[in-house]
Amino acid sequence: MREVYLDNSATTRVCEEAAQKALEVMTEKYGNPSSLHSKGIEAQHELEAARKACADMLSADSGEIYFTSGGTESNNTALFGAARALKRRGNRIITTAVEHSSVIEAAAELEKNGFEVIYLEPDKSGRINIDDLKKAVNDKTILVSIMAVNNETGAVQPIENAGRIIHRAAPDALFHVDFVQGFGKLPLKPKKLGIDLLSASSHKIHGPKGAGILYIRKGARIIPLHYGGEQQKKLRPGTEPVAAACGMGAAVKALPDMQSENAYIKDINMYLREKLSGIKNITINSGEECLPYILNFSAVGIRSETMLHYLEERNIFVSSGSACAKGKKSHVLKAMGLTDKQSDSAVRVSFSRFNSREDIDILVNEIINANNTLARSV
Amino acid sequence: MREVYLDNSATTRVCEEAAQKALEVMTEKYGNPSSLHSKGIEAQHELEAARKACADMLSADSGEIYFTSGGTESNNTALFGAARALKRRGNRIITTAVEHSSVIEAAAELEKNGFEVIYLEPDKSGRINIDDLKKAVNDKTILVSIMAVNNETGAVQPIENAGRIIHRAAPDALFHVDFVQGFGKLPLKPKKLGIDLLSASSHKIHGPKGAGILYIRKGARIIPLHYGGEQQKKLRPGTEPVAAACGMGAAVKALPDMQSENAYIKDINMYLREKLSGIKNITINSGEECLPYILNFSAVGIRSETMLHYLEERNIFVSSGSACAKGKKSHVLKAMGLTDKQSDSAVRVSFSRFNSREDIDILVNEIINANNTLARSV
Repeated sequence: MREVYLDNSATTRVCEEAAQKALEVMTEKYGNPSSLHSKGIEAQHELEAARKACADMLSADSGEIYFTSGGTESNNTALFGAARALKRRGNRIITTAVEHSSVIEAAAELEKNGFEVIYLEPDKSGRINIDDLKKAVNDKTILVSIMAVNNETGAVQPIENAGRIIHRAAPDALFHVDFVQGFGKLPLKPKKLGIDLLSASSHKIHGPKGAGILYIRKGARIIPLHYGGEQQKKLRPGTEPVAAACGMGAAVKALPDMQSENAYIKDINMYLREKLSGIKNITINSGEECLPYILNFSAVGIRSETMLHYLEERNIFVSSGSACAKGKKSHVLKAMGLTDKQSDSAVRVSFSRFNSREDIDILVNEIINANNTLARSV
Repeated sequence: MREVYLDNSATTRVCEEAAQKALEVMTEKYGNPSSLHSKGIEAQHELEAARKACADMLSADSGEIYFTSGGTESNNTALFGAARALKRRGNRIITTAVEHSSVIEAAAELEKNGFEVIYLEPDKSGRINIDDLKKAVNDKTILVSIMAVNNETGAVQPIENAGRIIHRAAPDALFHVDFVQGFGKLPLKPKKLGIDLLSASSHKIHGPKGAGILYIRKGARIIPLHYGGEQQKKLRPGTEPVAAACGMGAAVKALPDMQSENAYIKDINMYLREKLSGIKNITINSGEECLPYILNFSAVGIRSETMLHYLEERNIFVSSGSACAKGKKSHVLKAMGLTDKQSDSAVRVSFSRFNSREDIDILVNEIINANNTLARSV
């Protein structure tokens, strides 16, 4: 049976280029990048090439890119690192109610430690209101963390205007963007937008799991999360995850032209959207203005897990929400004002360049079958 | 020219079994282990098999093994996690002056935050005195962190007696062992020895970089270093470094019988030791009681870096100290009482099962040539 993998926001298949690079680094260029001999320097060169590929994607300098173990560590380093570095300047942290758990829970931990955290609420489309941000930022604000693309719906936050607003009202504040779902998909340039810190992950763009990056604008100062060796200017010490990081670099280089990939994904998304619109118990939770890589819908009357398992038995893989939540209720859909019925039947379909319209035909066919077989109240 | 890689304490070549497993996980079993569908569960099974392999090596339960990004994160998690969990019970932390930087600098950071840190000094052999530990542990002690095997000399610390001493004098304290240089090489069972927390790394035993483990004894409570998703009981959230972790599992399974590998390495070590003993400017810094995987010596009159580069030009790779230190002076050799002259000319040779006596012949031959060409005061 053909494997129809439509859970690319959870993780992606490692592309051939990335897998081969990781293999080469493991078996041939296996030196420790911190070793002073040529076997180490060879590995260091590979790592720096990967760093440059990531930097180029963001129009940043290589010196501003730090390899981490992934999106969670990058987000945690940004939040804890900024809050600890700036705690003498102020107490207010602003984020949104729809962030990934690695931002929300880091913020909650900071709240426990005496920081004031404001969670901006989204509207029905999942976007925050830029005026709410304006009202929230004051001169005691030390950190603002807003995701670029939501991991459950694809909703794109108004990042372009945020930087200006933040830096005008709070000159000391650092602006962090969780870019995990947007990296390689949205042409975002942190320097141009006043972004000081930015997180991205390898395994969302066909690189291996176990690597991510944190962009730290030159001049921005944060306190490290890890302590130890001399690696990465002591900001993220420890031997780098060389195979995964070099795989990430290869995955970045293997990305097709962003505009044409976006158009390709948009076509698949619209094709699915159109087909779903003809099914009466289905409501679509991702607006057309969302990044097309994600389409979230509710098939009211069928619980998310039931649909997910029905589809997986047919070799079709989708998600009931964030993989990191392991089935816990979605705080994102709740914040968007979905009813319990809609939320409990939500399905996230997420695309990659390895999907096609044929995958959508197979998916929709089985959704219709599921409706006929499983729905209680269609 | 034959490649003679004798820097296995810095990092090792990924063995075929580990590389193939990592490749399989990247390209076929690429699901997110937290995904609820079978593509995720398939990855989860691979991850759990790797966890079990690591647990078995320590005679521990799988539930006590947490995957991290490596030794530094494991050590940091242990130190910060224990100190933060137990700060209301006491203030004293005990470690040694010869720990890896990821322990020393985490301890120094805790010291800055108000903890009292005692650094036990080693004798000339690099070992701490168990009586010093006895004197240092009091009922305000909340954490003791002692490495099992030193990464510069191979010196083995008296871990067997430490656990009993600590738990008797400080019932609340957690005992952490940095086992990065001993894992797979020394038959240490944490449960039996009263060890609560233990760190190990993949890339020191022919697994990929980017994965390590932290053993947390069932019942021991620490505060996490990272916050976010539901992974690993929320103690180490974030998508696991699946390829590297599964590679680590495969590397553990591929380890030869410990006793026979130890004998093989001991033979190579003794062969080198004997050959070096005939060279008059050489003093050996690793006693025969050290773990045989490391032999540290000083070729007085030739600076470490000079020797290292002379050898690397001949495709022989050794180290001047810890790779993580990137050439910084060794705090370990200093604590052991070596003179500056000895310390500045120290060379670390570290072995793996892929080395042979032939490698030693090549090495010693070039050390003699280096002496003839480079030494100022031989």
